[in-house]
Amino acid sequence: MSYDAALDTALKRLRDEGRYRTFIDVERARGNFPNAVWTKEDGSTQDVTIWCGNDYLGMGQHPVVLAAMHEAIDATGAGSGGTRNISGTTVYHKRLEAELADLHQKEAALLFTSAYIANDATLSTLPKLFPGLVILSDSLNHASMIEGIRRNGGAKRVFKHNDLDDLRVQLQSLPANTPKLIAFESVYSMDGDFGPIEAICDLADEYGALTYIDEVHAVGMYGPRGAGVAERDGLMDRIDIINGTLAKSYGVMGGYIAASAKMCDAIRSYAPGFIFTTSLPPAVAAGAAASVAHLKTDQALRDLHQQCAATLKLRLKGLGLPLIDHGSHIVPVHVGDPVKCKMISDRLLEDHGIYVQPINFPTVPRGTERLRFTPSPVHGPDMVDALIDAMDDLWSRCALNRAEKAG
Amino acid sequence: MSYDAALDTALKRLRDEGRYRTFIDVERARGNFPNAVWTKEDGSTQDVTIWCGNDYLGMGQHPVVLAAMHEAIDATGAGSGGTRNISGTTVYHKRLEAELADLHQKEAALLFTSAYIANDATLSTLPKLFPGLVILSDSLNHASMIEGIRRNGGAKRVFKHNDLDDLRVQLQSLPANTPKLIAFESVYSMDGDFGPIEAICDLADEYGALTYIDEVHAVGMYGPRGAGVAERDGLMDRIDIINGTLAKSYGVMGGYIAASAKMCDAIRSYAPGFIFTTSLPPAVAAGAAASVAHLKTDQALRDLHQQCAATLKLRLKGLGLPLIDHGSHIVPVHVGDPVKCKMISDRLLEDHGIYVQPINFPTVPRGTERLRFTPSPVHGPDMVDALIDAMDDLWSRCALNRAEKAG
Ligand SMILES: Cc1ncc(COP(=O)(O)O)c(C=O)c1O
Ligand SMILES: Cc1ncc(COP(=O)(O)O)c(C=O)c1O
Repeated sequence: MSYDAALDTALKRLRDEGRYRTFIDVERARGNFPNAVWTKEDGSTQDVTIWCGNDYLGMGQHPVVLAAMHEAIDATGAGSGGTRNISGTTVYHKRLEAELADLHQKEAALLFTSAYIANDATLSTLPKLFPGLVILSDSLNHASMIEGIRRNGGAKRVFKHNDLDDLRVQLQSLPANTPKLIAFESVYSMDGDFGPIEAICDLADEYGALTYIDEVHAVGMYGPRGAGVAERDGLMDRIDIINGTLAKSYGVMGGYIAASAKMCDAIRSYAPGFIFTTSLPPAVAAGAAASVAHLKTDQALRDLHQQCAATLKLRLKGLGLPLIDHGSHIVPVHVGDPVKCKMISDRLLEDHGIYVQPINFPTVPRGTERLRFTPSPVHGPDMVDALIDAMDDLWSRCALNRAEKAG
Repeated sequence: MSYDAALDTALKRLRDEGRYRTFIDVERARGNFPNAVWTKEDGSTQDVTIWCGNDYLGMGQHPVVLAAMHEAIDATGAGSGGTRNISGTTVYHKRLEAELADLHQKEAALLFTSAYIANDATLSTLPKLFPGLVILSDSLNHASMIEGIRRNGGAKRVFKHNDLDDLRVQLQSLPANTPKLIAFESVYSMDGDFGPIEAICDLADEYGALTYIDEVHAVGMYGPRGAGVAERDGLMDRIDIINGTLAKSYGVMGGYIAASAKMCDAIRSYAPGFIFTTSLPPAVAAGAAASVAHLKTDQALRDLHQQCAATLKLRLKGLGLPLIDHGSHIVPVHVGDPVKCKMISDRLLEDHGIYVQPINFPTVPRGTERLRFTPSPVHGPDMVDALIDAMDDLWSRCALNRAEKAG
């Protein structure tokens, strides 16, 4: 058995399919987002503007967040020193959980080290709590949900993306007394489209299913207090479990679920991914809590964010570029060719100091390769101008179509 | 289907078995470890000394660690803003990976958000790289390893804890050309015993197996540069994949593997748990790197740590208490009864301000319930005196045996 040859094979497969990833080393400068310094392989550096980050609102440099982190480090040190059960629960963790429960108007919230592990741990634990549970999962659900659903070999049914008819057919095919859960997202991050929350909740009621929503790309940004799309649409109380992250619009790190006290208590008690790992550093919890609290009231920042997205979309449409526009804050431009997608991304970075990671298979289906822009309140008009000029030029040079693919 | 009733049942099961956990809210005071403030359910507070933390060396309050974190927050903000592939790789992450590769004298290292996810993601990904892989797993391996091994329904064989004969029998029973991996720990955290690293490596050579070691409870504390027990014993180059945490003796948060460049590259490219989650905050990476770098040279702190453990063990033995002593830094005192174990823990906390979490089933087998003490260089002689007096008193009051169970 040659292990080395097996590794070569695995790595060659990626290169052959054009999906070998090289990480771009970019460091943002606090107070100066989205400006960053790109450190190249040879050690030289270049100033760049980040156009593909998920710190959607720039909260990662907000003074209230940084102050809370500094204070917590000074007060209590670096790490928590333990798992939640063994010396790793602090006032910072409890305060953040209270903040999140309040945000989503649920009885409780449960912190995890990331939304990835919140999804994975929760969805893999639910079948232990509800024996025989069948999870109905949207076909475009995030990898962390898929991993959680698959983990313990639990029963699952995948329904076509956002397809209520398909979901209904699948629900109908299950016995009435089978426990069921519908798992979906509020904003799908690659297309920027919304899940049909109300209609899914109606189906859940009709067929006696629990509802699980991933609001990772919505919390902080939608709803009058930033609790997400379910809040915006007045549907939070119809969702049994809400999943969110503290690492994107809240600008720090960590993930959570918000649900009934009993549900959180049961997940807390049964999920290995919650139990057997060191809790978040108090400073991370403190920074996240400050961010969540701040965004409960800063509607102006949310409005500005939507405005930035609208402006960028308008200008890209003005160039006739094939935009995928579902009305969210995410701006994917359809390239439809992995080589050209990578090429435009490379040229943007090297010639224009514009960093946007190409999104190729398997993150998106083949033939739908794209550049995914994430405009934010910290992207000024000059940056938008520079991006528009560069895209106009590169689009022509790559002989890509305009207009007809738009919409 | 009553979901509520199912939750009641799941929670009742825990209460009936005496394994329902209530988290103790303790916050350490920076510069004053292991002193902490316990916030009770009613909101009142009490000063306590933490005797069960896993910040084994007190690095969570070390000035070099805190300074590195403060600096990184000032320089680059709170979170990383992206996954490693999409804008979330910074100089801080690369520097830490280089520091860790050097620590373990491997070509590369790969950062994860925790050692839990490093174990889970790596062990669940290896079967994708080595089709047909059989993982031979020590029966006392940590939950995160078990989860990773089980995840994709990969083939596994559990061998009796530290039992080389059993391991050999299982290796023998597998075809020579079957890819194999032996997964084990260097220090088992509940008994504090060591894995037989050299003998396992010999068996791996004999049967053509890869080796995977979890050094989570050893890194920072063993070996001339703190790389763990494999370093102490001159065996690092015989281990294919070393797993470690940045959240225990390094005092911050995060986990990693160190291995060949190819191995890290393949895991990096295929593990969803690595790919699809926001990277660690730069400040966390910076603090961890400072801690790792510091402990490469601070042998005095390691010596002091071992001395503290030796002293505590000597004094507990002096009382005739049944100590589980395998010569490591972990000091478990065998109680053997879940109710008494919890009672002693409660009395220590409430009457003596000594916080040590009781370790009951399922973390340890029934009948082996214990108190697990983690002495450290920040526990002064007065704290040891207080602990010894309290234990002496409580042991008598609970009518527990002395001496004969020791050893
Ligand atoms: C043996 C072992 N491996 C892995 C882990 C996970 O480490 P982390 O806290 O970094 O997730 C732990 C405990 O937390 C552990 O005890
Ligand atoms: C839809 C979705 N859910 C969950 C996650 C995981 O969030 P986190 O970065 O907090 O692990 C991500 C991305 O990272 C995501 O896009």
